[in-house]
Amino acid sequence: MSDYTPKPEHLFTFGLWTVGNVGRDPFGHPVRNPLSPVELVYLLAEVGAYGVNFHDNDLIPIDATPAEAETIKKEFRKALEATGLKVPMATTNLFSDPAFKDGAFTSNDPKVRAYALQKTMRAIDLGVEFGAKIYVFWGGREGTESDATKNPSLAIQRMRDALNFLCEYVLDKKYTIKFALEAKPNEPRGDIYFPTTGHMLAFINTLDHPEMVGVNPEVAHEHMAGLNFLHGVAQAWEAGKLFHIDLNDQYPGRYDQDYRFGSRDLKAAFFLVKFLEDVGYSGPRHFDAHAYRTEDYEGVKDFARGCMRTYLILKEKAELWNSDPEIQALLAEINAEDETLTPYLKKYTPQNAAFLSSFAFDRQALGKRGLKYERLDQLTMEILLGVR
Amino acid sequence: MSDYTPKPEHLFTFGLWTVGNVGRDPFGHPVRNPLSPVELVYLLAEVGAYGVNFHDNDLIPIDATPAEAETIKKEFRKALEATGLKVPMATTNLFSDPAFKDGAFTSNDPKVRAYALQKTMRAIDLGVEFGAKIYVFWGGREGTESDATKNPSLAIQRMRDALNFLCEYVLDKKYTIKFALEAKPNEPRGDIYFPTTGHMLAFINTLDHPEMVGVNPEVAHEHMAGLNFLHGVAQAWEAGKLFHIDLNDQYPGRYDQDYRFGSRDLKAAFFLVKFLEDVGYSGPRHFDAHAYRTEDYEGVKDFARGCMRTYLILKEKAELWNSDPEIQALLAEINAEDETLTPYLKKYTPQNAAFLSSFAFDRQALGKRGLKYERLDQLTMEILLGVR
Amino acid sequence: MSDYTPKPEHLFTFGLWTVGNVGRDPFGHPVRNPLSPVELVYLLAEVGAYGVNFHDNDLIPIDATPAEAETIKKEFRKALEATGLKVPMATTNLFSDPAFKDGAFTSNDPKVRAYALQKTMRAIDLGVEFGAKIYVFWGGREGTESDATKNPSLAIQRMRDALNFLCEYVLDKKYTIKFALEAKPNEPRGDIYFPTTGHMLAFINTLDHPEMVGVNPEVAHEHMAGLNFLHGVAQAWEAGKLFHIDLNDQYPGRYDQDYRFGSRDLKAAFFLVKFLEDVGYSGPRHFDAHAYRTEDYEGVKDFARGCMRTYLILKEKAELWNSDPEIQALLAEINAEDETLTPYLKKYTPQNAAFLSSFAFDRQALGKRGLKYERLDQLTMEILLGVR
Amino acid sequence: MSDYTPKPEHLFTFGLWTVGNVGRDPFGHPVRNPLSPVELVYLLAEVGAYGVNFHDNDLIPIDATPAEAETIKKEFRKALEATGLKVPMATTNLFSDPAFKDGAFTSNDPKVRAYALQKTMRAIDLGVEFGAKIYVFWGGREGTESDATKNPSLAIQRMRDALNFLCEYVLDKKYTIKFALEAKPNEPRGDIYFPTTGHMLAFINTLDHPEMVGVNPEVAHEHMAGLNFLHGVAQAWEAGKLFHIDLNDQYPGRYDQDYRFGSRDLKAAFFLVKFLEDVGYSGPRHFDAHAYRTEDYEGVKDFARGCMRTYLILKEKAELWNSDPEIQALLAEINAEDETLTPYLKKYTPQNAAFLSSFAFDRQALGKRGLKYERLDQLTMEILLGVR
Repeated sequence: MSDYTPKPEHLFTFGLWTVGNVGRDPFGHPVRNPLSPVELVYLLAEVGAYGVNFHDNDLIPIDATPAEAETIKKEFRKALEATGLKVPMATTNLFSDPAFKDGAFTSNDPKVRAYALQKTMRAIDLGVEFGAKIYVFWGGREGTESDATKNPSLAIQRMRDALNFLCEYVLDKKYTIKFALEAKPNEPRGDIYFPTTGHMLAFINTLDHPEMVGVNPEVAHEHMAGLNFLHGVAQAWEAGKLFHIDLNDQYPGRYDQDYRFGSRDLKAAFFLVKFLEDVGYSGPRHFDAHAYRTEDYEGVKDFARGCMRTYLILKEKAELWNSDPEIQALLAEINAEDETLTPYLKKYTPQNAAFLSSFAFDRQALGKRGLKYERLDQLTMEILLGVR
Repeated sequence: MSDYTPKPEHLFTFGLWTVGNVGRDPFGHPVRNPLSPVELVYLLAEVGAYGVNFHDNDLIPIDATPAEAETIKKEFRKALEATGLKVPMATTNLFSDPAFKDGAFTSNDPKVRAYALQKTMRAIDLGVEFGAKIYVFWGGREGTESDATKNPSLAIQRMRDALNFLCEYVLDKKYTIKFALEAKPNEPRGDIYFPTTGHMLAFINTLDHPEMVGVNPEVAHEHMAGLNFLHGVAQAWEAGKLFHIDLNDQYPGRYDQDYRFGSRDLKAAFFLVKFLEDVGYSGPRHFDAHAYRTEDYEGVKDFARGCMRTYLILKEKAELWNSDPEIQALLAEINAEDETLTPYLKKYTPQNAAFLSSFAFDRQALGKRGLKYERLDQLTMEILLGVR
Repeated sequence: MSDYTPKPEHLFTFGLWTVGNVGRDPFGHPVRNPLSPVELVYLLAEVGAYGVNFHDNDLIPIDATPAEAETIKKEFRKALEATGLKVPMATTNLFSDPAFKDGAFTSNDPKVRAYALQKTMRAIDLGVEFGAKIYVFWGGREGTESDATKNPSLAIQRMRDALNFLCEYVLDKKYTIKFALEAKPNEPRGDIYFPTTGHMLAFINTLDHPEMVGVNPEVAHEHMAGLNFLHGVAQAWEAGKLFHIDLNDQYPGRYDQDYRFGSRDLKAAFFLVKFLEDVGYSGPRHFDAHAYRTEDYEGVKDFARGCMRTYLILKEKAELWNSDPEIQALLAEINAEDETLTPYLKKYTPQNAAFLSSFAFDRQALGKRGLKYERLDQLTMEILLGVR
Repeated sequence: MSDYTPKPEHLFTFGLWTVGNVGRDPFGHPVRNPLSPVELVYLLAEVGAYGVNFHDNDLIPIDATPAEAETIKKEFRKALEATGLKVPMATTNLFSDPAFKDGAFTSNDPKVRAYALQKTMRAIDLGVEFGAKIYVFWGGREGTESDATKNPSLAIQRMRDALNFLCEYVLDKKYTIKFALEAKPNEPRGDIYFPTTGHMLAFINTLDHPEMVGVNPEVAHEHMAGLNFLHGVAQAWEAGKLFHIDLNDQYPGRYDQDYRFGSRDLKAAFFLVKFLEDVGYSGPRHFDAHAYRTEDYEGVKDFARGCMRTYLILKEKAELWNSDPEIQALLAEINAEDETLTPYLKKYTPQNAAFLSSFAFDRQALGKRGLKYERLDQLTMEILLGVR
């Protein structure tokens, strides 16, 4: 049996809010007592994580005094040093406080937009202080329940203004931190702007400093809209914009479930891990998930261990898939180039166009070939099932 | 009672495939005899449409001889002249023929990719010949049922190569036609690449000639994924990329229904029409929908008339909304600027940042204001219901 | 303009938890201070409601002493008397307390199942004390996140045992209260047992006293699964099981939104109101919804008023539809009987079967008729839009 | 390595329409030439199936003459005899012909209802002639696009009349065949009546001969609505109504995909197989699915073999799960009875009620226990993945 023990080089990270989730939901009270950031760092060290991420208020309560903040930071730093855990990513909580009930950067109220900028600048400072290299933006409240209440063009412009402002702030401060935008289609708002990774990628291109900004796709958020997560991740990767990734699981068309990675859609999880490993994604593997509400903190550890273990199992299966002779033979056959035509496809020239325009294709023959995709998929399932 | 009669200035268009749909579905045979393109042009003229769009094979069967094609074109042109209908948009059928069963531009088979280029170049010529200003790309088969079968990064690159090739073709031919990319999340493939308008907008930015390429969002396609259509359209508009639009209706999370415009989600249709009219969208209003399978051609006309009539009713309601004193008073209150803060938000300067960083916000006060959005939404519904 | 003022005869009711909702969600803190049951009764009286419903712990906190409970009840009764509000329905909270984190009646832990019975017996007593005629069961936690954790057959049996037990309790106590089961597909559990009104209707037939048990369908719960709410309500009504109804609104395939009635899917709301009024449903119209989180208590009143007002507007439109000559003419045509055949359809006899077996049907003719459903639906939309 | 070869005792069946699917979809033409029923029987024999099911018109074209029908039946019978294949189930095609465009048994047109009865009586005769023990009803067109067009109560009554009529027909003919009703939420209609297995179970209870009628749940149909298939199957089983089952796969919230069994949601497929095997379901395992449109008939065989092989792999994993010591220990712990309380739960008596009413529960203690469900689920996933 292989070794599925998490090691630092796997770059497995968890947010303080993930293993620290107390199990409150819209219909029920907390089931676990809150742990302090220090306790959570030790819990993560115990299960073998590489790093820990936080929202500003996961670490420093929104109403902490400066002195309290200093004490908290000191203790947190001590715990990081004692355990060796890193802080690869930080982010701002712009959704819990009632002030943000109609959004932060897209709020109709300029006071709220101003407060959101202030809060984010401070939170970036905090992230940088702990060595974070990636700063995530999840605009959980940037949306509407009714489109009577906000002008969508204006909302996009306000979001752009905020991101441009904060990019300049980072440049001015000579920070090297990069931004990663995280999309979600809905919940807690009826509709959230920039609902998918695709919309975020498009938006980035309209910023003043697109080179500083990438995406942080989350499995659950794209699955909520029933989208193929791999395809979105591939588009982000191919555009050089996969700055971070949130791993978890989710059944489509439902409330945000934040399940243990790989626990719901094994096939999607497999293709995702395979992609990340195949292309050499070198950023953190961040598990943005939480334990079932049925669990105590032993169960939280089971949850965290399960996330990492399943990743490593799937990584091994990806290697198996890549070296399976029958699969590789099928792939070679399926992707065979055609020496007659391939040279004419890549780039337009009048000559290439003329050649292609007059080429006599055998349409019936093209339609008749069996592509052996059922076989290829079945072989994949059997690798997943461990019977191959 | 107002006049909801369609007029040429409304730019209402229909595809040949919409009123020409014969009612075949995965479980049933056609219920209507096919009409010829000429008959369909007369039908559209009868109901008051401004224009008619086509796929190459809607007009010219895939196996027509050159002579047959010439005859068809001649008769079609005669019908256009007789009725005054325009052809504002054309497109290629890259999905019906078995040759395209695994996609066209993203097919693993270079022969298929080559054939798709040939077919599209010829279809662009045909569109230009009839005066089309917009050329739509809907890659209905550009996807997978299993991600074992295609490399998603490679698929994106192949799509880019094809679009770049065809942009150059248009430039080389000195055509002025522009491209509009149409997204769909799934059906007929398990997953289609670039599943939303957001993904398409992002993709356009990676092309060699992004200025030639915009989007053609379709109500039903975004509703299939449960996304807010208005938000996607606003993002496209704000980016200068709303080149065309497909109006119809659809219940979320289902097969592609292509219902009569406004017949399912009246509220979404209202906000969409209001947006298009408010921003001054000047392109065609294309109804990409078809009549229920219960209908004969009289029902098809009812369907087409209903699409246009509902658009005009909603347009009138948008004007009513824009001039409703209570609604406008609420909007003014909700969007009130704040002279103290607004000047510091728009653009980063170290001074603005310093000001915002040290400003003392009354967080509790921000959270306590009631925003009157229930009232605003109820007033909107009452305008929709015609009781206000 | 018609009068859309709610009156007692409209039987509009709200739960204490609806107008009392403080706006907490999975990502945010409360935005409204809690009001006492007495304050909520006065609020409901102010907006014109007929009645108020409650969970046991909406009225009496779970940890109240008997003396505290008596005081609360006394004050609540006084408020009811002062305002004239009735309590038509009551229910048990079997989901908020951590004890119920894995369900109540279907929990694997017999202690939890026993506690749930105790809590429900006491809550039934409380409901009866305040004159409730209907007792609702919503088993929000009766489900799983993983089917490894519960045996589904056993869960069904446990649910049946509990319902049988409680029916006997009611009979033994000589109460006349009836039970109404409320289905929901998911949230807060990954999957909830008996996910739709259909499953509940089927389950009722397996109880010892099916005559005591009906359903309480909720718009939002069936819309979450993308089901046609009207069809489920019609099946319940036709089976004599529509004991209560929860009115609100919801976009399909999302978290539980509990929007203002009629604010999202106007067409579905219209057909529902029309059905309830057409068949003469005589129970309460219960609005199980809450105000947006952007609202203060003035907004909560706007919300409550909007629910009732929209119901009354739709009721008026239903009357309009029923008396529209063109619509009625279409319906008469569509539903025309056939004297030759109708007599043979209703009941099997060997003679009827023989007649039908040998009848020569003109299949092509049956397929060719246009059914005018596009026209009928367009007329319906125009009544909804108030332009007819 | 275990043997996953299909054997007759596994009762694996396929419909003629499954391996005979030619790959037409709403956007594309057929990709495979049709095979005759005889050819399909030989294909199924070759891959190792136990039986073959059919719609009347899969075997006998709707316009066949009596003489043609006799020839077809004779040849089909010969093929069955030669291969040893059985016909365990038959059904009626009440959806392909335009005559049924608005439904069959629920059509507003009495002629159509009468024709549907005739067609079904004849098709039952045909099924019985070939030894079918189960007769499936899938009312694919029994629904609406707009609820303006049909009265839902009336539709339910018409469906009941038809089922009652046909039960009497079977009794009158002294057939022993039983009926199995198959639910689907939508497609090809906007909404189909009785959208889930739950609704069908409830409907059966209102028939004159409920003992003759059960259900035929289909994985894909319930997954379309995002429902937990296992829970619906368990409810049917527990009610003695699981007469047949349709195995395939489907991504939620999409068009009807009819994928190879176990190829999309491995976890759901696992729990389903485990349930069927654990409870001793003894009916056919019918694969109601079809090969991807990318396949030729070799791919169709790969598809069919994959369905059966995956079932057998999952069956083996179910045994492994049932005998895994750690899993079984966890289950024993989770399901431990409580001698003090269990006896009072099962049945109501005034004494039991009194005991439970006054029992002092430790609510906090009940909420604090960790239930170890994360661990249990992770162990399950590892069995699925074959690493345990």
